[in-house]
Amino acid sequence: MNDKAIPNDRSTALLTDKYELTMLQAALRDGSANRQVTCEVFGRRLPNERRYGVVAGTERVLRAVEDFRFSANQLAEMDFLDDKTKEYLRHYRFSGQIDGYREGELYFPNSPILTVRGTFGECLVLETVILSIMNADSAVASAASRMVTAADGRPIIEMGSRRTHEYAAVTSARAAYLAGFDATSNLEAGYCYGIPVSGTAAHSWTLAHTNPDGTPNEEAAFRSQIDTLGVDTTLLVDTYDITKGVETAVKVGGPKLGGVRIDSGDLGAVTRRVRKKLDDLGNHNTNIVVSSDLDEFAIAGLRGDPVDAYGVGTSVVTGSGAPTAGMVYKVVEVDGIPVAKRSSSKQSVGGAKRALRTYRSSGVAVEEIVYPFEAAAPDTGQLDTREMTIPLMRDGHIVDGLPDLHASREYLAKARKTLPWEGLALSRDEAAVPTRMVGFKK
Amino acid sequence: MNDKAIPNDRSTALLTDKYELTMLQAALRDGSANRQVTCEVFGRRLPNERRYGVVAGTERVLRAVEDFRFSANQLAEMDFLDDKTKEYLRHYRFSGQIDGYREGELYFPNSPILTVRGTFGECLVLETVILSIMNADSAVASAASRMVTAADGRPIIEMGSRRTHEYAAVTSARAAYLAGFDATSNLEAGYCYGIPVSGTAAHSWTLAHTNPDGTPNEEAAFRSQIDTLGVDTTLLVDTYDITKGVETAVKVGGPKLGGVRIDSGDLGAVTRRVRKKLDDLGNHNTNIVVSSDLDEFAIAGLRGDPVDAYGVGTSVVTGSGAPTAGMVYKVVEVDGIPVAKRSSSKQSVGGAKRALRTYRSSGVAVEEIVYPFEAAAPDTGQLDTREMTIPLMRDGHIVDGLPDLHASREYLAKARKTLPWEGLALSRDEAAVPTRMVGFKK
Repeated sequence: MNDKAIPNDRSTALLTDKYELTMLQAALRDGSANRQVTCEVFGRRLPNERRYGVVAGTERVLRAVEDFRFSANQLAEMDFLDDKTKEYLRHYRFSGQIDGYREGELYFPNSPILTVRGTFGECLVLETVILSIMNADSAVASAASRMVTAADGRPIIEMGSRRTHEYAAVTSARAAYLAGFDATSNLEAGYCYGIPVSGTAAHSWTLAHTNPDGTPNEEAAFRSQIDTLGVDTTLLVDTYDITKGVETAVKVGGPKLGGVRIDSGDLGAVTRRVRKKLDDLGNHNTNIVVSSDLDEFAIAGLRGDPVDAYGVGTSVVTGSGAPTAGMVYKVVEVDGIPVAKRSSSKQSVGGAKRALRTYRSSGVAVEEIVYPFEAAAPDTGQLDTREMTIPLMRDGHIVDGLPDLHASREYLAKARKTLPWEGLALSRDEAAVPTRMVGFKK
Repeated sequence: MNDKAIPNDRSTALLTDKYELTMLQAALRDGSANRQVTCEVFGRRLPNERRYGVVAGTERVLRAVEDFRFSANQLAEMDFLDDKTKEYLRHYRFSGQIDGYREGELYFPNSPILTVRGTFGECLVLETVILSIMNADSAVASAASRMVTAADGRPIIEMGSRRTHEYAAVTSARAAYLAGFDATSNLEAGYCYGIPVSGTAAHSWTLAHTNPDGTPNEEAAFRSQIDTLGVDTTLLVDTYDITKGVETAVKVGGPKLGGVRIDSGDLGAVTRRVRKKLDDLGNHNTNIVVSSDLDEFAIAGLRGDPVDAYGVGTSVVTGSGAPTAGMVYKVVEVDGIPVAKRSSSKQSVGGAKRALRTYRSSGVAVEEIVYPFEAAAPDTGQLDTREMTIPLMRDGHIVDGLPDLHASREYLAKARKTLPWEGLALSRDEAAVPTRMVGFKK
């Protein structure tokens, strides 16, 4: 029995598809490894006809690129490579440039999210790890952002660790926090990223206080939880009868009880009943926390009900119907020549790109203009503009002063306010902001 | 900038929801931490009304439980815990028993997939990491197994790393291989789990051979690939015009060319055209590999077409519409007393459980019988039976002689043959094998 999936040395170099290394071997042999290329990360469409996407994972990508080194042990394993290729990989260190959208930025179909420039050899081998991170993190952040809007100012706690890969759980907590969630249940995410960690109690807690004769003892469970965690804790009241659970909670916790959590049933009807019960008992300041398979639609549906906080699990860590953002990484320029796949579907526009976004004086976004990377910014008349494409990596080093997770979270909260009103709708439709390509040859 | 999501010391102990440790603190204080409990991993239903699920992740779970230790650094971070709890965690080592379904076994709604026995304290804290692994791995394996059936003996290569979290990519490759996929593109999965790794080439390869004047040079790309990787390589022929791509591939590779890959278009029509072209050129032994958003339905739809191998990405790593298996971990017994949540939805049956499956003499499964863990096996008349529940961990140690990944893969291939014919249907319906609870009080 052996599980080496989490390597001790943290190298990201084998989080890679084999064909990248066999192509590298051929490219070293025929010389194309030294051609200067530009690779672009973009999404052809937004999943499920959503109105916008959220760029997430950028910081993790830059870190993974810096960490992309092959250890002697890893190279020794790869008997399918010739010595020249192994020697190249032994010294591999990305030395190129990365520009792109900052983390927490909104994106739309064909937004040039990352522009990676360097030799074909050095850019080629980064495809998988860059896409894995961007696709996973952006999927979660894009779904989470819709939930934050649906919650309309009420706090949301991410508690989906148990529904996704154990390490995806950690980065999902990060992506949800970026999108505006208030806390996570995941300890590792708190430890790694400084995200607030919170939690209540499980049904197992109440069940573990069953009397020796087999009768329930919810009161003992509640009393012990309050004794240890204080009266501002949140008690889970739906293990047996919810109404009795609330009565017992108030009996034990008194008027200062922090909250009750409800994890089953018709949450709208139940929260109204529980709110009335709490108020009748004088517990006007005791909060109601709800969980139980909530997604953005269920959250929106509870907007008129007395909910003080949401706990969201499965739907956020699985991207609420879109578990991957569907971004691709394509060579768009070779030695200054725009290139693109041409056959049938999946066509794209060749050439290195950058983008700006225009805004009305009210601050509402009008359109995104994508133009050649080396060209001057197009004239946008009297509209305000913001450059979307910023330097992220220079000569293989992460540029100084990039915003951290907390700053990116604040940035996104403001960026969401630039969407036209239909941009926050949960229904399916076109992207809220159109993307226009300017200055490219067809 | 800091990404510590992949810890150097590989401890799994913080892949945990905070409430598990706060409940532990209260349980240590009130004594309930010492009560003997049984926790059960099961799924209330199969996602998307599938006919069966595949148990995957068991070996990884057992390993994670063995590795579940708290380092001094981790404990120092947890300022929300009292000294007694930190002391308990400092010495934490699971010392209980785990029984359950072997990896690669089929499961159905309410199958008692894992039965974890120990003190409440030691079982409580394992909830998140056990569920994360089982839910992620079983989701992928369950989807992959349907694809293997749909492929009807043709090989499938897993190539979805870029569409999921960078470490989920590695374990997804493992789960897909367990389910019968033949290879993966992911190098780390090959390195960690001994899975065959394969690959072809990307469009970037062809595009990187664009002439200095901007004209395409597919021939140079193909020639270089064959020079380096040999004539049995697979050439990607759909960067420009597919028919010309095939002609160029045969011109360069000759009659012994290994294969061509097609990654776009109407794959049925295109493969028929390409097969005819290859045959007309005398390349009867050149294989056709297809990729491009394939799922089990698309694979089945190509059954009558001249496809020699499938490359499957997004759909398999995202569980083809069911990115999590939806398993839960519930306390079902406390000091020998069966317990269960009783309110409204999400009811379950209390009591520690084990299961056997019955079969006709033809080998076809009839039903799954779930019965009390300590009871004698129920009489199943003249039907053949197989005990589903086997010892996996004893006193905190993984039992000797558990099957490895390759053995589990073979086991699953045989287990699939025990399904009634409708069990292999891709349409939505009830589980193929009914589960019956025997000997439990309601």
